[in-house]
Amino acid sequence: MSGDIVHPTLEHIRAAHDRIRPHVHRTPVMTSGSIDSISGSSIFFKCENLQKVGAFKARGAVNAVMSLNENGAKKGVATHSSGNHAQALAYAASLRGIPCHIVMPRNAPLVKVEAVRGYGARIVFCEPTLAAREEALEEVVSRTKAAFIPPYDDPRIVAGQATAAIELFEDVQDLDAVMTPVGGGGLLSGTCLAAKYTSKRVAVIAAEPSGADDAYRSLARGRIVPSEDPNTICDGLLTSLGKLNFDIISRSVSRIVRVEDASTIKAMRLIMERLKIVVEPSACVTLGALLEGQEDLLGKRIGIILSGGNVDLSKLPWNDPR
Amino acid sequence: MSGDIVHPTLEHIRAAHDRIRPHVHRTPVMTSGSIDSISGSSIFFKCENLQKVGAFKARGAVNAVMSLNENGAKKGVATHSSGNHAQALAYAASLRGIPCHIVMPRNAPLVKVEAVRGYGARIVFCEPTLAAREEALEEVVSRTKAAFIPPYDDPRIVAGQATAAIELFEDVQDLDAVMTPVGGGGLLSGTCLAAKYTSKRVAVIAAEPSGADDAYRSLARGRIVPSEDPNTICDGLLTSLGKLNFDIISRSVSRIVRVEDASTIKAMRLIMERLKIVVEPSACVTLGALLEGQEDLLGKRIGIILSGGNVDLSKLPWNDPR
Repeated sequence: MSGDIVHPTLEHIRAAHDRIRPHVHRTPVMTSGSIDSISGSSIFFKCENLQKVGAFKARGAVNAVMSLNENGAKKGVATHSSGNHAQALAYAASLRGIPCHIVMPRNAPLVKVEAVRGYGARIVFCEPTLAAREEALEEVVSRTKAAFIPPYDDPRIVAGQATAAIELFEDVQDLDAVMTPVGGGGLLSGTCLAAKYTSKRVAVIAAEPSGADDAYRSLARGRIVPSEDPNTICDGLLTSLGKLNFDIISRSVSRIVRVEDASTIKAMRLIMERLKIVVEPSACVTLGALLEGQEDLLGKRIGIILSGGNVDLSKLPWNDPR
Repeated sequence: MSGDIVHPTLEHIRAAHDRIRPHVHRTPVMTSGSIDSISGSSIFFKCENLQKVGAFKARGAVNAVMSLNENGAKKGVATHSSGNHAQALAYAASLRGIPCHIVMPRNAPLVKVEAVRGYGARIVFCEPTLAAREEALEEVVSRTKAAFIPPYDDPRIVAGQATAAIELFEDVQDLDAVMTPVGGGGLLSGTCLAAKYTSKRVAVIAAEPSGADDAYRSLARGRIVPSEDPNTICDGLLTSLGKLNFDIISRSVSRIVRVEDASTIKAMRLIMERLKIVVEPSACVTLGALLEGQEDLLGKRIGIILSGGNVDLSKLPWNDPR
């Protein structure tokens, strides 16, 4: 391997799919005539908000946990996350009946802490800095010998996330493009591989918040530009790209569109009102991009992977007078 | 028929199902392990909030409109409603390409007016009283010769609404009970017939808001007690029972449970948070009843028909500090 980055193959993705199938939902694909009219495209929404733990992250985490050999698994798994990956890993570990350690900042929302505890994971609190988080994780791993399962920069995670697009391509023929949000790049890199391996013509287009456009800038510069002081409502899209993810994305993605939060919020409300499903802001940046107008996509058949639905319903980002 | 009330037969319901199948969704049945834990029952949610126009009402309205003969249909259809039946009838008329007249109170929310207009219906505004509404409807019908399609007190409507339970019984075996909300009684009476005709053992249990408990009182008195000054957040459950509906319900329903709005709101939030789907308060009175504790239903397999998802997302009925 001599320093080269090895991408998951189609066989890896198929194996991941077989591994996770008993434990995750085959999520539905939904459409809305009125959203099609408003956007000017035919949109097929792959509803990963209806996935186990409310996000596509269940796919990668279950694949990683189910890939561990018996001896490795016994000692459990660990990660640092206060988001959907934490819940996903806790869920996956509970399926296999192994210990799960989640490092979380002390200021994590109580609802997220309880969701993770609900799956039986042990939580290690740390100060809310990257350094404290990494230190706490190292301490946990060296004490317990648990296997670290990263949130996106890992071939098992990428292969798992790729299965969402595989299902979408099976269910909807002749897509012109598929769109995903991009944060760390797990979903986007998996989708790039799925498109490359199974579809000759589908373009992969990513969307990210203007206030957290490190993936856009990374692609432009040809190297990973870290996310610094991100400012966006999309709390799932704050992180920097992973190495494996960037390597895949930079070879395959058609473009990365930067989207204003106002458009994402408009998209979020449209999806909730017309499709009657609950989505988190990070999931809506893709439709937000279409609402801002992507001329080459007008009249096209577009798959959108709705990444998750974990949102605080008492803090929806619109504020009409009651 | 000498004054007797004739109930739709199983053949009527099957014919309705064939008639509407091309035009409505076969809605999914969803489950949630965490809601099961909280409620103590195994609940199967039939998601009519994901139905066309966001409510089961599409079934009855499409059946009624598609049942009209060619000559009758030409002159169009009419009703008075500011709720889901208005949208459903407008949708059904648009499918058949015939005129649709909807009488609405002047103070109807703009969003509902626009939803109906979106399907191409003509709106006749009237003063917000029952008398003004009926007068306006009579005027429209006598001027246009349009066919009046009532919201619930009609065998075509009841046969259409019955198809939701038919699908639920096909998809989920061995239910002990099926629960629906009760307003005018269209969904409940259709569900009673579906249960009677196709399932020997399933009990039909209705739920209604304590602040609009006319169906409960009607059942107790053995005659229709009109709904007077209802006071509830469940804006779809304010009306009095229809004659046909009461006749069916009073022969078949196991019981009608009265539910406090606080329980309904708790149920609504649970459904939105755990199932990641958008529901209106009226749809949640059934789970609200289970949260209040129905001892005989503990450990049982219960189907719940989630009636609709048309809710103003800027006015969700919880008010945590932002």
